[in-house]
Amino acid sequence: MNENEIRELLENVKNGHCEVEEALDNLKELPFKDLGYANIDNHREIRVGYPEVIYCAGKTVEQVRGIVEFMNTKNNNILATRATEEMFRAVKEVCGEAKYNSMAKIITIEKREIPKKDTYIAVVTAGTSDMPVAEEAAVTAEFLGNKVERIIDVGVAGIHRLFNKLEIIRGAKVIIVAAGMEGALASVVGGLVDKPIIAVPTSVGYGASFNGLAALLSMLNSCASGVSVVNIDNGFGAGYLASVINKL
Amino acid sequence: MNENEIRELLENVKNGHCEVEEALDNLKELPFKDLGYANIDNHREIRVGYPEVIYCAGKTVEQVRGIVEFMNTKNNNILATRATEEMFRAVKEVCGEAKYNSMAKIITIEKREIPKKDTYIAVVTAGTSDMPVAEEAAVTAEFLGNKVERIIDVGVAGIHRLFNKLEIIRGAKVIIVAAGMEGALASVVGGLVDKPIIAVPTSVGYGASFNGLAALLSMLNSCASGVSVVNIDNGFGAGYLASVINKL
Amino acid sequence: MNENEIRELLENVKNGHCEVEEALDNLKELPFKDLGYANIDNHREIRVGYPEVIYCAGKTVEQVRGIVEFMNTKNNNILATRATEEMFRAVKEVCGEAKYNSMAKIITIEKREIPKKDTYIAVVTAGTSDMPVAEEAAVTAEFLGNKVERIIDVGVAGIHRLFNKLEIIRGAKVIIVAAGMEGALASVVGGLVDKPIIAVPTSVGYGASFNGLAALLSMLNSCASGVSVVNIDNGFGAGYLASVINKL
Amino acid sequence: MNENEIRELLENVKNGHCEVEEALDNLKELPFKDLGYANIDNHREIRVGYPEVIYCAGKTVEQVRGIVEFMNTKNNNILATRATEEMFRAVKEVCGEAKYNSMAKIITIEKREIPKKDTYIAVVTAGTSDMPVAEEAAVTAEFLGNKVERIIDVGVAGIHRLFNKLEIIRGAKVIIVAAGMEGALASVVGGLVDKPIIAVPTSVGYGASFNGLAALLSMLNSCASGVSVVNIDNGFGAGYLASVINKL
Amino acid sequence: MNENEIRELLENVKNGHCEVEEALDNLKELPFKDLGYANIDNHREIRVGYPEVIYCAGKTVEQVRGIVEFMNTKNNNILATRATEEMFRAVKEVCGEAKYNSMAKIITIEKREIPKKDTYIAVVTAGTSDMPVAEEAAVTAEFLGNKVERIIDVGVAGIHRLFNKLEIIRGAKVIIVAAGMEGALASVVGGLVDKPIIAVPTSVGYGASFNGLAALLSMLNSCASGVSVVNIDNGFGAGYLASVINKL
Amino acid sequence: MNENEIRELLENVKNGHCEVEEALDNLKELPFKDLGYANIDNHREIRVGYPEVIYCAGKTVEQVRGIVEFMNTKNNNILATRATEEMFRAVKEVCGEAKYNSMAKIITIEKREIPKKDTYIAVVTAGTSDMPVAEEAAVTAEFLGNKVERIIDVGVAGIHRLFNKLEIIRGAKVIIVAAGMEGALASVVGGLVDKPIIAVPTSVGYGASFNGLAALLSMLNSCASGVSVVNIDNGFGAGYLASVINKL
Amino acid sequence: MNENEIRELLENVKNGHCEVEEALDNLKELPFKDLGYANIDNHREIRVGYPEVIYCAGKTVEQVRGIVEFMNTKNNNILATRATEEMFRAVKEVCGEAKYNSMAKIITIEKREIPKKDTYIAVVTAGTSDMPVAEEAAVTAEFLGNKVERIIDVGVAGIHRLFNKLEIIRGAKVIIVAAGMEGALASVVGGLVDKPIIAVPTSVGYGASFNGLAALLSMLNSCASGVSVVNIDNGFGAGYLASVINKL
Amino acid sequence: MNENEIRELLENVKNGHCEVEEALDNLKELPFKDLGYANIDNHREIRVGYPEVIYCAGKTVEQVRGIVEFMNTKNNNILATRATEEMFRAVKEVCGEAKYNSMAKIITIEKREIPKKDTYIAVVTAGTSDMPVAEEAAVTAEFLGNKVERIIDVGVAGIHRLFNKLEIIRGAKVIIVAAGMEGALASVVGGLVDKPIIAVPTSVGYGASFNGLAALLSMLNSCASGVSVVNIDNGFGAGYLASVINKL
Repeated sequence: MNENEIRELLENVKNGHCEVEEALDNLKELPFKDLGYANIDNHREIRVGYPEVIYCAGKTVEQVRGIVEFMNTKNNNILATRATEEMFRAVKEVCGEAKYNSMAKIITIEKREIPKKDTYIAVVTAGTSDMPVAEEAAVTAEFLGNKVERIIDVGVAGIHRLFNKLEIIRGAKVIIVAAGMEGALASVVGGLVDKPIIAVPTSVGYGASFNGLAALLSMLNSCASGVSVVNIDNGFGAGYLASVINKL
Repeated sequence: MNENEIRELLENVKNGHCEVEEALDNLKELPFKDLGYANIDNHREIRVGYPEVIYCAGKTVEQVRGIVEFMNTKNNNILATRATEEMFRAVKEVCGEAKYNSMAKIITIEKREIPKKDTYIAVVTAGTSDMPVAEEAAVTAEFLGNKVERIIDVGVAGIHRLFNKLEIIRGAKVIIVAAGMEGALASVVGGLVDKPIIAVPTSVGYGASFNGLAALLSMLNSCASGVSVVNIDNGFGAGYLASVINKL
Repeated sequence: MNENEIRELLENVKNGHCEVEEALDNLKELPFKDLGYANIDNHREIRVGYPEVIYCAGKTVEQVRGIVEFMNTKNNNILATRATEEMFRAVKEVCGEAKYNSMAKIITIEKREIPKKDTYIAVVTAGTSDMPVAEEAAVTAEFLGNKVERIIDVGVAGIHRLFNKLEIIRGAKVIIVAAGMEGALASVVGGLVDKPIIAVPTSVGYGASFNGLAALLSMLNSCASGVSVVNIDNGFGAGYLASVINKL
Repeated sequence: MNENEIRELLENVKNGHCEVEEALDNLKELPFKDLGYANIDNHREIRVGYPEVIYCAGKTVEQVRGIVEFMNTKNNNILATRATEEMFRAVKEVCGEAKYNSMAKIITIEKREIPKKDTYIAVVTAGTSDMPVAEEAAVTAEFLGNKVERIIDVGVAGIHRLFNKLEIIRGAKVIIVAAGMEGALASVVGGLVDKPIIAVPTSVGYGASFNGLAALLSMLNSCASGVSVVNIDNGFGAGYLASVINKL
Repeated sequence: MNENEIRELLENVKNGHCEVEEALDNLKELPFKDLGYANIDNHREIRVGYPEVIYCAGKTVEQVRGIVEFMNTKNNNILATRATEEMFRAVKEVCGEAKYNSMAKIITIEKREIPKKDTYIAVVTAGTSDMPVAEEAAVTAEFLGNKVERIIDVGVAGIHRLFNKLEIIRGAKVIIVAAGMEGALASVVGGLVDKPIIAVPTSVGYGASFNGLAALLSMLNSCASGVSVVNIDNGFGAGYLASVINKL
Repeated sequence: MNENEIRELLENVKNGHCEVEEALDNLKELPFKDLGYANIDNHREIRVGYPEVIYCAGKTVEQVRGIVEFMNTKNNNILATRATEEMFRAVKEVCGEAKYNSMAKIITIEKREIPKKDTYIAVVTAGTSDMPVAEEAAVTAEFLGNKVERIIDVGVAGIHRLFNKLEIIRGAKVIIVAAGMEGALASVVGGLVDKPIIAVPTSVGYGASFNGLAALLSMLNSCASGVSVVNIDNGFGAGYLASVINKL
Repeated sequence: MNENEIRELLENVKNGHCEVEEALDNLKELPFKDLGYANIDNHREIRVGYPEVIYCAGKTVEQVRGIVEFMNTKNNNILATRATEEMFRAVKEVCGEAKYNSMAKIITIEKREIPKKDTYIAVVTAGTSDMPVAEEAAVTAEFLGNKVERIIDVGVAGIHRLFNKLEIIRGAKVIIVAAGMEGALASVVGGLVDKPIIAVPTSVGYGASFNGLAALLSMLNSCASGVSVVNIDNGFGAGYLASVINKL
Repeated sequence: MNENEIRELLENVKNGHCEVEEALDNLKELPFKDLGYANIDNHREIRVGYPEVIYCAGKTVEQVRGIVEFMNTKNNNILATRATEEMFRAVKEVCGEAKYNSMAKIITIEKREIPKKDTYIAVVTAGTSDMPVAEEAAVTAEFLGNKVERIIDVGVAGIHRLFNKLEIIRGAKVIIVAAGMEGALASVVGGLVDKPIIAVPTSVGYGASFNGLAALLSMLNSCASGVSVVNIDNGFGAGYLASVINKL
């Protein structure tokens, strides 16, 4: 409700076209509407074609099923991340069209077709072991309405593999780099392209990777400009942000 | 040098239009050209209107002066970050038009006018103490050809200040949030807008901020989607990445 | 035993109203009584209506059962935290009225009715996944004689949800905020109310939450005044302290 | 502006007692007022007798002077923490009645007399070296309208010193414990009193105190209930929270 | 073999009382003997009545059984720490007199009676959950020939419990304090007695104990003199060192 | 393809001995060949007698089997590290001659005999529990064509054991030292020999070893010159590097 | 005041040999006396020949001078650690016989002669750079009434230097080992002697020593039994504890 | 002294060719000689052409001068690392031919000419700011008798610069890579060459480099084989080890 809408409402009250109590009901909620909170309240995501998202980690199977059951009444697409197989089976009971990507650990429920942007997002991994995180990013980005190109296992230990794929990487509007161990791939890609790089450290590695800390610090300290970082193993966050940028 | 160019070169060799040694010279350097390394070599930045960048920390005053002196011969704009006043005075000797922003600790040398994108970048800080970092980001972004709106001191301790500025923040194409202490501002902004947020943790805070670690971890763990993070106090990195995104 | 009591005892010895040995018995224990240690010894908690508390983590099932069995003879209310289902079953054998809250992992044995303070404690969580910790806090506070209002899933990613509940939060005498990830909710609530905030970081989050470290540091560095912090996932500690403050 | 006030305003518009534009002006700002942001906006602190607070660390001398100069026009009490002597001299130029506590590093400007609560806050330190932090807490609490009792150098290495002061500590409504090294004093006090304890770790100690980390972790892990923790060396935060609790 | 013994050997060679080859055999091993390595080689422990010690963690069941089987041929007492029940069963097969303390996770094989020192070692714990570590220390010390007094659950949350036991603690020649959480007990005991304190941090505690790190740092930073620290949960190390000191 | 080969190819094109399209096929891949990437592409390892290496951690059983199945077609030796027994059984199905070293967790497939260097590598461990890491190093080195001498359980707690083996250690061309706990063995060996030492910290130890961090830091800080460090538990890395040095 | 003394006092009250008020004065302080707190109160240290100790770090010059001035009236020996030269000059003004050891940063005031124990303490350092810490330990131990043997620069990089000094080390009743970098010396000495070792990590070293953290962790993880650890650079703590053990 | 030498000595004693006391003198020192400790004792370094090395950090100017003064009498080459200009001036007083490399912070005293190995060591840096560390490595290696090629500022942000220098890097027998920030250069070089890589993390970088920790972890986790790591900023260690390997 912007300034004009408030003025109009007040004129209507003055003119008797609108009852005081009716105006009151609108104005009581004004704070949120004026600030756009109602957007959020009424599911901003839905209006812009985004699915509703459930972060399943730390929730019980019952909670996940319950949330899906409720959302399911609203005819929206639904994306549930960090979902176990058990959660999927529970969700399947209340929503038959649910699908499960076991590598990405994502449940998707596609009720309305998802239109795709023309430009694409490149999802690049250093190794095969980074695939679950990359897949979480890729599936998220696709479900949010983006085309995704996957480039797997092009880590710097055999840098020629990366060069073979450089053209497709450079063609992307935004690039996600998922890497564990020392995470050097983010810097190297950052040095070779002039697109925004979203670096996702993964928890892949020997002891002193400290569950992804090494890759995280490495990526934060990238000597190449244009690289920013999301949380360790946070494929969803990378896919979401890439979608936001791709749709600018 | 793409496939067609190689074919043409070979035809020329076959036809005698090109000597073996001459073709050899071209092909020897092929790797870099084909991969676009020559772009970098020939200063990709310059061609796309970007300044040359010098990271002064860890360099001696003499080194900084020397680098500027050399670059100065090439008629490019120059941006030197983390520069001390002493460095500036040395640079000034070899390049009279150098300017110094003492809050951002940036030396700028603008030889060619910098055209500005229409869309703008918002640089938001939680507190007054975050201004040096924010200013490094803002000056960098401006020098890279972007309009910047500065929104200072809107931390969550007095969240109404943020709401007063929300319209201008939402109008930006990309948003930089610089915050120390607990860095909560990044998450709150992330929950209110649907633009990419580049979070810059600053080293502002009491003891357990551990020189920015608290804000860094906070921002990496943002519950709001669309937030990515650069290094602690890395205003330059944020400004550079924001420019890349703003120009997509 | 205060100064007057000692004087009286000595007068009695002087007057022969009290035997030397009898006085000796009292004075031998004086240190603890004078300092109030006997209060603790004789279960300060019980006298002020508090239950006895057992921290079950690290104890064997046999130890927990044994402790409850002994306490059970004293007709006091008993609160056992971090109890497994197996512990509950063992306790149930020796104390039929024991109840188990599986989300809070708390066993309660209510032998005497618990009177409730008029003012209430608000227990606020950022997400659904923080509920086990919040429930530990809430159940503890209730069992210590407080009314509790639960406000669940109002994290800053959708800050309007928080604003919708602000009135009930502001009505509390003391507020517990349980949040994982970046824990920004504590700062935001701290900026909106003028009541003491007890922040409980939870271990909910992706990799770089480092099992709650991110939220912990975030909360310790809160830019909002009036926020203090207890241990990661320490719902009991938060509930106990909230009760102490609520009863001031 | 609560529901009744909105209703009254609307009635006035309907009745013609209030012009549309005038009502508009009020309602435009409604979001902040309804949520209480206007409280903050219009200096909640002042209305409840609190001073305005400036956190000087990271600000330039000029910024501090400028902020004081502006605030000084509003006839409020002002508290500036982490202020250097140089800052004080600059403030003194624009505000003659400014005073400086060099141990607490606090500038105070008392324009209106500060009424004091009857109940008092105890500020307890483990050692002499913790005094700067304790003094920051004490001066803050006093300036916020509280009586403060200082109990210095009663660390657990000579625990009898603590027992000698126990009565005065127990008489407080809320207790601040400032301790460096291993910070055990917080737990010991927590085991002896049934009042809320605000523990402030200080950066005092040998190498493995890691600038207060040892005391911080120690206090967070206190085996005594009723203890919560603020940031390392954050005397201000402790004093502020103690005041909030003391005034409940 | 000291200087005199070498001289004597050489005289014997000179006099023909000893063959060159025989002397050679002795002297070949000289390096170790002279430096005392032979003490270790020939099982210093055995000669001074100490058992042989096996650290089972990281060894396979087969390795543990094999080592015991070999040692068993030498008629020495054997102490195996960090032994699982499965290891015990395997050991039992090759050595029928083996006994297992499941709380301490120690296998003992007592072939020769263990004489006990007159002075005793006090093993003090903060809580019940610290008992496994304390028991590892106590069993080790007893098996090394010391009397041990166990004082359990006297943490500072109820400090009067400690005072009740102070006499027995003060009577010890050396004191082991095992505590998790904030580990304050070590400092408090250190402030009350003038005997050497061996502090053992345990991994007992809520999240920010970080598996004993909090107690470790706390103990290292003890403000009480006379406290030194061994590794987290290292009951064996504490028991061993206490034995060395008790036998001085 | 070096400069001479390119020249020859061009001459052939000129002379008509080689068709343009044929030359094109070669030159298209030039970038990698010129930089030596083709070495990697065409399996540099194979040409120099090295096996192909698969890092199995983080890969699924199906992925490991698939990779081996493909590699198996190329008649090369294969080394798969961090392989589980389940992976081995899957590999065995597609490659009958696969062997499994369960301590090293390595699958080896030896299709072509591996010639051995004359000089040898010493693999030294501090304790029995370090054997899995040492064995990973040793098996790797052997499979890469080196002789290996294993010296087990010569930690500094009984330093004479080390001295007994010093001759064989000194005879090696390069030495691997695997040690957990405090990792002092690396420094002691480094002080006694003048060969390159590759130190491998292992995750063996009590609590404050923090899964190998203590040994890692210890080895990085070695006061003895000539010591460098690989990742915690990274036996493969040590064995590989030792092989590179041994073959210089 | 023990039980007999209390009984006697009571008899005297009964008999009229002692007035009630007089007895009251004694008994009022009883708590501390009975628990031995009076020992501390009345300067336990003095009675057993120990000096009073002042930890100067974090104190102002004025505070240190004031404390010494007060103590100086009591004719006791005084030891002030971590004292700057400026502090010494201030102390010298109020106490002419004060002496300063600039390497140990210790002020000593010896008013009464210090008798020495027959057995001695060995203070061993790995390098020359560890001397300030070692000297703090040695001076402390000497001032507490112990003979000290200093063995400097016998680190494991040249282990023969240690062996040359082994006899004198073994002759000590307790051994202090001060070492920075990787701190391996503590383990090596621990493997060679059967006396208690007090390990003091020092902050000497390159970057990844992290100001002594590497040596600290190394020493805590010592594979040799009989080693315990005090805080980084805490020479005083080591010297004090060594004295306690030496005087057992 | 090997077995044969001992036998011969004994025969001589038997035959009277050698006196008992004379044989005793030899055998007394046997331990060190047999183990080669005398090599160290009699300056192994000198005999093999190595300079004596002084690590100046933590030493006083007087100590450094004194050590040089003593060594200077022995006509050996001397290398003093981490030397300040003040130290150099003091050394210059006692040894006129001393030279100072202010970037490497190394004092060298070359009394005897240093012969150079034919093969060379490559010292590669990511940036200009890494030069002090690289120079410490290079000067050390040269002074130990090696040829060194310096390749400066070839970090991965502009990877074509590295490729331009690849030939010279591949020509080395061993390669030192010094890099700060994310240290990715070590992995990239490791993927391109088959020589041993000694990675030196430097403390160059923004906040979350944590003084070199990021580069350290990155290098330890290198996905490229053949990379090992020395301490942060430890140019000397890298240079020394490179020399050992180059001279194999």
